[in-house]
Amino acid sequence: MVDTMTAPSLLNINQMNLSTGKKARLYRLMYRFGPGNGKLMILPIDQGLEHGPVDFFDENNDVMHCADPEHQFQLAVEGRFSAIATHIGLAERYFPKYAGRVPLVLKLNGKTCIPSDEEAFSPLTSTVEDAVRLGADAVGYTLFVGSPSQDRDIAQFMQVRRECERYGMPIIMWAYPRGRDVDAKGGKNSLYAVDYATRVAAELGADVVKVNYPEINPAKMDSYPAPYNTLRLDDLEAARKVVASAGKTLVIFSGGSRVTHEELYDNVHTAFKSGAVGLIFGRNMWQRPMNEALEISEHVREIFKKY
Amino acid sequence: MVDTMTAPSLLNINQMNLSTGKKARLYRLMYRFGPGNGKLMILPIDQGLEHGPVDFFDENNDVMHCADPEHQFQLAVEGRFSAIATHIGLAERYFPKYAGRVPLVLKLNGKTCIPSDEEAFSPLTSTVEDAVRLGADAVGYTLFVGSPSQDRDIAQFMQVRRECERYGMPIIMWAYPRGRDVDAKGGKNSLYAVDYATRVAAELGADVVKVNYPEINPAKMDSYPAPYNTLRLDDLEAARKVVASAGKTLVIFSGGSRVTHEELYDNVHTAFKSGAVGLIFGRNMWQRPMNEALEISEHVREIFKKY
Amino acid sequence: MVDTMTAPSLLNINQMNLSTGKKARLYRLMYRFGPGNGKLMILPIDQGLEHGPVDFFDENNDVMHCADPEHQFQLAVEGRFSAIATHIGLAERYFPKYAGRVPLVLKLNGKTCIPSDEEAFSPLTSTVEDAVRLGADAVGYTLFVGSPSQDRDIAQFMQVRRECERYGMPIIMWAYPRGRDVDAKGGKNSLYAVDYATRVAAELGADVVKVNYPEINPAKMDSYPAPYNTLRLDDLEAARKVVASAGKTLVIFSGGSRVTHEELYDNVHTAFKSGAVGLIFGRNMWQRPMNEALEISEHVREIFKKY
Amino acid sequence: MVDTMTAPSLLNINQMNLSTGKKARLYRLMYRFGPGNGKLMILPIDQGLEHGPVDFFDENNDVMHCADPEHQFQLAVEGRFSAIATHIGLAERYFPKYAGRVPLVLKLNGKTCIPSDEEAFSPLTSTVEDAVRLGADAVGYTLFVGSPSQDRDIAQFMQVRRECERYGMPIIMWAYPRGRDVDAKGGKNSLYAVDYATRVAAELGADVVKVNYPEINPAKMDSYPAPYNTLRLDDLEAARKVVASAGKTLVIFSGGSRVTHEELYDNVHTAFKSGAVGLIFGRNMWQRPMNEALEISEHVREIFKKY
Amino acid sequence: MVDTMTAPSLLNINQMNLSTGKKARLYRLMYRFGPGNGKLMILPIDQGLEHGPVDFFDENNDVMHCADPEHQFQLAVEGRFSAIATHIGLAERYFPKYAGRVPLVLKLNGKTCIPSDEEAFSPLTSTVEDAVRLGADAVGYTLFVGSPSQDRDIAQFMQVRRECERYGMPIIMWAYPRGRDVDAKGGKNSLYAVDYATRVAAELGADVVKVNYPEINPAKMDSYPAPYNTLRLDDLEAARKVVASAGKTLVIFSGGSRVTHEELYDNVHTAFKSGAVGLIFGRNMWQRPMNEALEISEHVREIFKKY
Repeated sequence: MVDTMTAPSLLNINQMNLSTGKKARLYRLMYRFGPGNGKLMILPIDQGLEHGPVDFFDENNDVMHCADPEHQFQLAVEGRFSAIATHIGLAERYFPKYAGRVPLVLKLNGKTCIPSDEEAFSPLTSTVEDAVRLGADAVGYTLFVGSPSQDRDIAQFMQVRRECERYGMPIIMWAYPRGRDVDAKGGKNSLYAVDYATRVAAELGADVVKVNYPEINPAKMDSYPAPYNTLRLDDLEAARKVVASAGKTLVIFSGGSRVTHEELYDNVHTAFKSGAVGLIFGRNMWQRPMNEALEISEHVREIFKKY
Repeated sequence: MVDTMTAPSLLNINQMNLSTGKKARLYRLMYRFGPGNGKLMILPIDQGLEHGPVDFFDENNDVMHCADPEHQFQLAVEGRFSAIATHIGLAERYFPKYAGRVPLVLKLNGKTCIPSDEEAFSPLTSTVEDAVRLGADAVGYTLFVGSPSQDRDIAQFMQVRRECERYGMPIIMWAYPRGRDVDAKGGKNSLYAVDYATRVAAELGADVVKVNYPEINPAKMDSYPAPYNTLRLDDLEAARKVVASAGKTLVIFSGGSRVTHEELYDNVHTAFKSGAVGLIFGRNMWQRPMNEALEISEHVREIFKKY
Repeated sequence: MVDTMTAPSLLNINQMNLSTGKKARLYRLMYRFGPGNGKLMILPIDQGLEHGPVDFFDENNDVMHCADPEHQFQLAVEGRFSAIATHIGLAERYFPKYAGRVPLVLKLNGKTCIPSDEEAFSPLTSTVEDAVRLGADAVGYTLFVGSPSQDRDIAQFMQVRRECERYGMPIIMWAYPRGRDVDAKGGKNSLYAVDYATRVAAELGADVVKVNYPEINPAKMDSYPAPYNTLRLDDLEAARKVVASAGKTLVIFSGGSRVTHEELYDNVHTAFKSGAVGLIFGRNMWQRPMNEALEISEHVREIFKKY
Repeated sequence: MVDTMTAPSLLNINQMNLSTGKKARLYRLMYRFGPGNGKLMILPIDQGLEHGPVDFFDENNDVMHCADPEHQFQLAVEGRFSAIATHIGLAERYFPKYAGRVPLVLKLNGKTCIPSDEEAFSPLTSTVEDAVRLGADAVGYTLFVGSPSQDRDIAQFMQVRRECERYGMPIIMWAYPRGRDVDAKGGKNSLYAVDYATRVAAELGADVVKVNYPEINPAKMDSYPAPYNTLRLDDLEAARKVVASAGKTLVIFSGGSRVTHEELYDNVHTAFKSGAVGLIFGRNMWQRPMNEALEISEHVREIFKKY
Repeated sequence: MVDTMTAPSLLNINQMNLSTGKKARLYRLMYRFGPGNGKLMILPIDQGLEHGPVDFFDENNDVMHCADPEHQFQLAVEGRFSAIATHIGLAERYFPKYAGRVPLVLKLNGKTCIPSDEEAFSPLTSTVEDAVRLGADAVGYTLFVGSPSQDRDIAQFMQVRRECERYGMPIIMWAYPRGRDVDAKGGKNSLYAVDYATRVAAELGADVVKVNYPEINPAKMDSYPAPYNTLRLDDLEAARKVVASAGKTLVIFSGGSRVTHEELYDNVHTAFKSGAVGLIFGRNMWQRPMNEALEISEHVREIFKKY
């Protein structure tokens, strides 16, 4: 029986049968940058494509510093993140100045949120070869697990995976349950959906999988497929369940949209108690003023070192 | 007249006009591993993709040992299966440790079960070249016979078949009737559908075809196309009909979802009495504790040797 | 004016401006095998894919000998047919034993009949290169004339035709009117539809076209497009009209589903009186016991020689 | 202001910045064959694909001589046309005998008229390379301007144009407004539609554009987009408007379906008065007996020489 | 906080990390031609494809001089524009005479406006290789941001971007919000839509982005997504917001459809006050008589030099 009650040991890259190139690059992310003890703390700035500039307003509807990508690159370097994750456009324009000082994760596919997500699919915005050319240490791919467009998505991921194999490039899958059928079965954040998505990442050959924390929403229990409709797990148990489903694929959790410092730190603790190797923080970091973001990232790194 | 009353003789690989590479690899599966007398006993672990983690819960809704792919790989080796069948992700992460000790069948296509199967289609998750690189001895391909997406599916299979020809790689077709038109004609397990699917595998050039045992459901007779709507065959006769439709394509049956030991052993007997060369056991094996699974697989192997 | 009242002279391969390879191979089919006087008598066994095993039952719903493809290959050799036409699977498994004793026509595309034919399209099941590798003397392609999917179909045929050009491989088009718009205009066997389909084969570059005998159904006259809605032609005149529409493309008619010997022989006479160069006989041949089939094919060959 | 009141001067190939190969081939069409004074008089025989054999019946519903493609090829040679335009099938079978005596325009795409034209699209039936191999002096491409399938059509044309660039092959675009949105805006022959289609040909890089004479139908004025809904132009002015929209792309008009000799000759005069370089005559020529067709074509050539 | 109250400094090509080829070509556009001080003043003539000849009528419905593309090329040279932007057809026919005297921006994709824009998508009409062959200094690509067809559009842009990378060709994106979902969220000219589109251009790797001036329409506020539904910005502030969203991507604004000279000059001032590097003027220039257009362009250039 898979134990969701006690903390699992941390998966490390020697247990994953990685190719030489993948290992060399992941090693850089996990040991040479960021917290540096085999963990991952990633700063993404792809929201300008995925959500549009709406994410760059403050509560007074003023445009914030974070609308300028320079901010995220500075924060990634000074906050000593393991990597910054961006699409090709920002990578081409802003990364050169920081190249070598923080690893790059090139996000390979994306879309706007203007059309509905009923049949969500993210086309390629760049290639593995672009990533190699820019000196990236990993690529990111968003797979919409369960979308009616999954046939195109899985096929597109397969091509990306093969290119990654060819170049020794690690591949991080943003495994996102999405689409009308996911909605009908309890939604994109349900344990059912996140657990399934995590296993899909492992089955399809991702090296790292990024997922949101799963929720078990009492109000939606009836819509969850069995046996998830009767499972009684707390947040940590649910997270452990997800990490167990990843098997030998490294898991990183999303920092989430909760805003207080304490909640953010709790999320970090939960990640490691569940066996994940790290987190990805976006708005929770770069929507704050630089000084505050640096303090938080410093504090987060300290938590990272406890595990 | 094709005789469905007496046991057919077993098809062997010398009668199949196989290319050298295909013969060498199938020989390994059929004579060097597993029961070893020209038969096939395959352990699949692709359910994490096809069904999600739901297959890894026990009756108390606790997560079982089988959620960890290590379990299936160990069982395949210790239970002396002919091969283990997995997707690329598990093959990359778990097979290296067992390479050489059990043959690998790389499943080349798959999908989640979140969207409906009305227009079912499984995109590629890996390639024949991946299979060659990993030292696999066969590849698996799921064709959804009768699906409205059959045009894409047959075309995709054709490409896979040609790559297999190029590399001398045997191809096992999971021939699954599926889609709204199959449902309208009596369902995916009807003798009509399974018999047709088996013939399709033979027509399209599969080396081995994997099908479920056909059912003749009195309650659905009216929906079967003629003459299946008037056929009166018992289970063994129906199985023989299917094996006859495969011609010179090797047939393996699914172990099915029946759970008692006796039913499982009966399924094995039926397979060989019908002329099939083996079975594929998934949940019937790995959902049980290792010891029990090993005992069953030992017993199954003994039955295999009687034929 | 094209004369549909007197018997046209037979088209021969010297009048067709064929490339050397096409001519060499068609010569083999038309002069070295079969009736041998520039005519074609082809045995197809693709029904297992197109119709499923339903075609292999007798009137008592017993499975017949013809369910075993060995039967058709034996019949093709012993009945001295010009060629046997099969898909890749049967060609790979059964043809090797008969290679050289009867020419092979490799059917390159096909589908099951489980989904409706409203938007009928047959994807490729093999390639011209497969045909070359197997020593085939021609390939077969099914084009669904008038289907809403005609754009994909014409494009796919174009690729096949170009490969045939490259390898000097003759191409036989099964020109089948099909789809919802064909149904609305009088159906797939109307003279309107068959005549149009035949001309399409000639326009697109088929070397041989296979069509069904056209029907002029008084009950459907109103649905035929002008001037077919007022044409009064008997069966022979209708067949001559079709052959005339083929121009310098060789025509072979289907043996049809009529079952008495006399009707079958009448069909043969009609074919030659209309200017066709042969017929294709499937179920009319192989659904009969071998001895009877051989007698019929012997008799048919004698009729062939009269023209 | 573009003057639609006085006769424009004739565009010639030295003003078009053509590549050497295109110029050499167009020169052959325009100066070495046909009327020979920089004009074009083309005989098309693609109606067997586009309309079916219905175009080959006379008023008594008897099949005419023109059902035999030999007729059109003879007429093209003896009537001294600038070129004959056919699809690959007729070109392969009938052109060899006439090769060198009349230039060939290979029509590269086409379709049947059995499905509706609501989303009209013509797939490729042959390639520019086929045209080069057959010694054609130009290729023809049908673009359905305004069809909902315009995305595929423009993309397909782009590939053809690039191949033409590569081989120095002139490209004649049959620019046909078509589809449900064209119908909603006044129909396929409106000045709005034909004028737009002509400009599209020029924008996309056709060397020659073939259009129908535009109509200004008082009954449909309300459905024309502004300012076409208020334009008052006579037939010649409308034709001049269209030719002006072609810019440096040569224009040829369709001979139309009007049947009297006088109307046909009027059409020829209108073409040259409007600045077009020629016409394309199909049914108006080959539906007539050979002698009559030759007389007409002789007379037409004389008119050509007056301009 | 990004300041929308004070004029931003002008972005220049040394800050953009451009490849050598891109920089060399953009330098030519921005310093060797046009106003010549790092700014862009582009004359487009793609309206014949995008709108049809309707744009070439005057208020009396007479056809104007501008229907002849020669007019736009002359105006581009004599009005000393930075570049002229056209599709392949006009570039092939008209540009040779002016080559070297004004840079060419080859528009690579386009469509007619006959079908609705609900799922707008522009297929390729030419390639980056065509642009290189013709000596163009940049290419133009229209991306319909937010269209349900965005998956095809983003993927197609990606291929173009990679070819541009390969050849060192600058890429100007016409970033146009379009489609039914854009309409539902306030329309294609809303600040929400234009701001998002601009950021998308930056994320996807455009070198220059062309957008329309954003509007904040009080009547549509309710349909804008938050926080745009409560933003109170004047025209200049809105333009600055958009330019800020472009980051290190150069912005050019459309000259718009406003017709008085004063409004046009105001638009120019607004562009530079907002931080854009230029404008693109179409109908505002070439719908006027040559002399008037030259006077205006002269005056515009003077305004350019003030910034």
